[in-house]
Amino acid sequence: MANTATILPVSSEGFIWTPSGGYHRGLRTPAVVPSTPEDLLRPRYDVIVIGAGFAGLAAARDLALAGKDVLLIEGRDRIGGRTWTSYDEEGAKFEMGGAWVHWMQPQVFTELQRYGLDEFEITTPYSKNGEVLVQRFRNEPVRVESQEDQEAAMADTTAAMGEFWNVDGQGGRSVVAFPFDTRSSAAANPNYLAVDQLSIPERAHQLASLSETQKEGVIELASSFFGIAGEETSFLELLHMNSLCHFNNALIEETTMKYKISKGTTALALAMLKDFTGHRILSSPVSAITQRPDGCRVTLSSGKEFLGSKVISTIPANVALSIHYDPPLSSLRREGLSEGFAAAKIDKILATTSKDLADGLSITCEGGDMPYLTGFADGVQRKDQSLITMLSKPDVDLDCCDETIRLLDRLHPAGLGITSVRAHLWSKDPFSNGVVGCRKPGFISKYWEELRKPHGNLFFCGSDWAEGWRGLMSGALEDSYRVTREILRGTKAPDYE
Amino acid sequence: MANTATILPVSSEGFIWTPSGGYHRGLRTPAVVPSTPEDLLRPRYDVIVIGAGFAGLAAARDLALAGKDVLLIEGRDRIGGRTWTSYDEEGAKFEMGGAWVHWMQPQVFTELQRYGLDEFEITTPYSKNGEVLVQRFRNEPVRVESQEDQEAAMADTTAAMGEFWNVDGQGGRSVVAFPFDTRSSAAANPNYLAVDQLSIPERAHQLASLSETQKEGVIELASSFFGIAGEETSFLELLHMNSLCHFNNALIEETTMKYKISKGTTALALAMLKDFTGHRILSSPVSAITQRPDGCRVTLSSGKEFLGSKVISTIPANVALSIHYDPPLSSLRREGLSEGFAAAKIDKILATTSKDLADGLSITCEGGDMPYLTGFADGVQRKDQSLITMLSKPDVDLDCCDETIRLLDRLHPAGLGITSVRAHLWSKDPFSNGVVGCRKPGFISKYWEELRKPHGNLFFCGSDWAEGWRGLMSGALEDSYRVTREILRGTKAPDYE
Repeated sequence: MANTATILPVSSEGFIWTPSGGYHRGLRTPAVVPSTPEDLLRPRYDVIVIGAGFAGLAAARDLALAGKDVLLIEGRDRIGGRTWTSYDEEGAKFEMGGAWVHWMQPQVFTELQRYGLDEFEITTPYSKNGEVLVQRFRNEPVRVESQEDQEAAMADTTAAMGEFWNVDGQGGRSVVAFPFDTRSSAAANPNYLAVDQLSIPERAHQLASLSETQKEGVIELASSFFGIAGEETSFLELLHMNSLCHFNNALIEETTMKYKISKGTTALALAMLKDFTGHRILSSPVSAITQRPDGCRVTLSSGKEFLGSKVISTIPANVALSIHYDPPLSSLRREGLSEGFAAAKIDKILATTSKDLADGLSITCEGGDMPYLTGFADGVQRKDQSLITMLSKPDVDLDCCDETIRLLDRLHPAGLGITSVRAHLWSKDPFSNGVVGCRKPGFISKYWEELRKPHGNLFFCGSDWAEGWRGLMSGALEDSYRVTREILRGTKAPDYE
Repeated sequence: MANTATILPVSSEGFIWTPSGGYHRGLRTPAVVPSTPEDLLRPRYDVIVIGAGFAGLAAARDLALAGKDVLLIEGRDRIGGRTWTSYDEEGAKFEMGGAWVHWMQPQVFTELQRYGLDEFEITTPYSKNGEVLVQRFRNEPVRVESQEDQEAAMADTTAAMGEFWNVDGQGGRSVVAFPFDTRSSAAANPNYLAVDQLSIPERAHQLASLSETQKEGVIELASSFFGIAGEETSFLELLHMNSLCHFNNALIEETTMKYKISKGTTALALAMLKDFTGHRILSSPVSAITQRPDGCRVTLSSGKEFLGSKVISTIPANVALSIHYDPPLSSLRREGLSEGFAAAKIDKILATTSKDLADGLSITCEGGDMPYLTGFADGVQRKDQSLITMLSKPDVDLDCCDETIRLLDRLHPAGLGITSVRAHLWSKDPFSNGVVGCRKPGFISKYWEELRKPHGNLFFCGSDWAEGWRGLMSGALEDSYRVTREILRGTKAPDYE
């Protein structure tokens, strides 16, 4: 891997800061790939797939393998969507977006295994001695909290969480009986849609046996899972995550923050792209989708047009309404897209340090005026370089502000010794508008069916609409299989005839 | 589904007994499919796949989709291998072999989801009141044991199981760190190969803190997982299963005995076959595989020959040595095939009763001269028909012996009211020779690498060689992806170049 990064292409996305070089926009990544030469493109295709994230890549690949003429259109200059890997000069890997996977996520694990990419790196997010570095205000010094301090502070909340989940006397098991099948879960429990109405605070306030302090603690902890205000977070969505993790809270973290793909997320995207035999154009944002008697017209912001008998849009819910639809989407669908989701606006900053962080590191900044929320050690990249992942509040000008770098460096009593900072500011990204949206209370009852329906010959697809691991790579793949099947076979499942 | 079974073809496999009709060989199943007309067959193919179970179906499908000319050869008159579904006149489903799946099994769940077959039936194996019907000897009456009796009898053993697993001070977690990656697990723990040497009794006798009675209880319980004598069962294999189930014993049963595919296992096999664009011949057992300068010659027992540039054999380990190989397999491979596995010889009998078994039923017969081992309610098929699944000892002439039917009926104080019995006697099946083999102690150290290597242009493939869910449908699919990749791309995983 050493020295390969110097020959990698550069995406216009992301930025890097180094002590000697200051800020530079753009990062090297193999996710930048050339478009099909323009003279080979045709005005019409069987299927046009919008978006070359995992949902779009899988749908394009599978439809082309099934014999369809497919055009894949991507707005960015690279593939991978909300997941991409950059490399430094010596080949160390930086996952700029979604990074963690697990074999509990069946679709992504199966794809990784099929491509021989099912080797994983385990990072050590938390300090082995249990210590946490805490700084909530810029003008305070950082202090060290012991594991005992934290556990004592959390003991009341931890004890109350069992009650929080136990909405049915079975720890929630009878409510989300089929974590990959909303319809079967709803059919199996008459209270399913009632539970769907609950926000996190509403659920907490049902628990008469808890003290007010416990309720507050439960609300704070439960809200932290998706990084959204508790009032905007659906309790059912949390319970669904718990069901995916076999109602074992410890598995939530193991599934979503422990294993990274050794060869990087972009290796999977490239492997899928290699199996895609159709045409592709990058750096081509879509501005309008128009239903026509013979299919669906896709207009690029450059004015260029293509016609697809069917069109799949994998544009995220957060930005789906930035496209012009003719005829317009139903008012229920528009409401679902604008009101159904709460999109966490969190940025992910990848800093390197010459410190050896093999024993982990844990940082907390929430609750004051610091630009950061939390941070943790994220693996030793080589002898003299460890990675620190910081999650920050949105609307911090991270890509041009020396003050934020200075604050980062001071998050350790001895200084963190930051040698570089890289980030993709998802909160300002025009193609994603934040990270994946979380469902608000009542989402399933009101919007679920409507949002998954096709709009004429236009099919919506992606991790926002997944049954299982919504918002993750596995969910994107899952939903691509659904839409691919709907296009190839109609919506009816095959019988044995 | 009603009345469809009368138009289904009949396989020569399995038998049915009814009170009025007695014994009849053969069962109706959509798994019987026609061969490619003989005049279309060619003498040579890019790839010949032997065996149309899930491993063979997936490999044939994927290689043909990738542009290879593929011939699929099956010895039986039906597809599905050790998994197939029969139907009665009113469309009730009988899973004659492997039946249970779970979303923790990534490959089979992903395939089911891709084909829109991811709807499940939950059966109620155990009686809701916790009672067990016990009869160990033919000349004894059946008696009813309460849940309390059983729990009291098991309490000592249950308490000791934690110690049994805890081979590393971490409940075994550091030994099988990567349940889908043997090489990474072995690399991560220097004791991996030492643990691989242990049989179940050897592991139990390491536990100085246990009483002799506890050790016996632990050995009996642990041996029951695979139905093999403890001395022949690898402790590592059990620990591996536990790792697949996130070190939560309750999940073992949930994963392997709770969810059946609503449309039947054969629906998945047929969906995969429908996507296979190559040639196929059924009822064509293979007798010899000969390496040639230009590939591999496959000789059928009819004398017919085909040449494949590559050949994939999905013949189970239990019967792999019944084929003639020229040049012969290595002596280490032959030893691995004959000595490495212990094949459980258990038959599965599906009985119907007019009793309503919605509240479950649990039967134990082990330890005496009864032909049966255990049994349980396995779902209500319709208003007046419930299913009972019995596991029996091998070498009982179940397919012609009224006495075994009489003994079955008497397993309830009021009579079970048996209305039909169906079975496939896997213990006598020439293509499987019992159910899936379990690895003996030392298997990984001695045979693992050798058995997964190709033999010239012949590739061994199937659930016996899987990393993860060995012996199950998911493992068969997993291993087919590996071998497909090896044939298409060589064994090297793709890099990002």
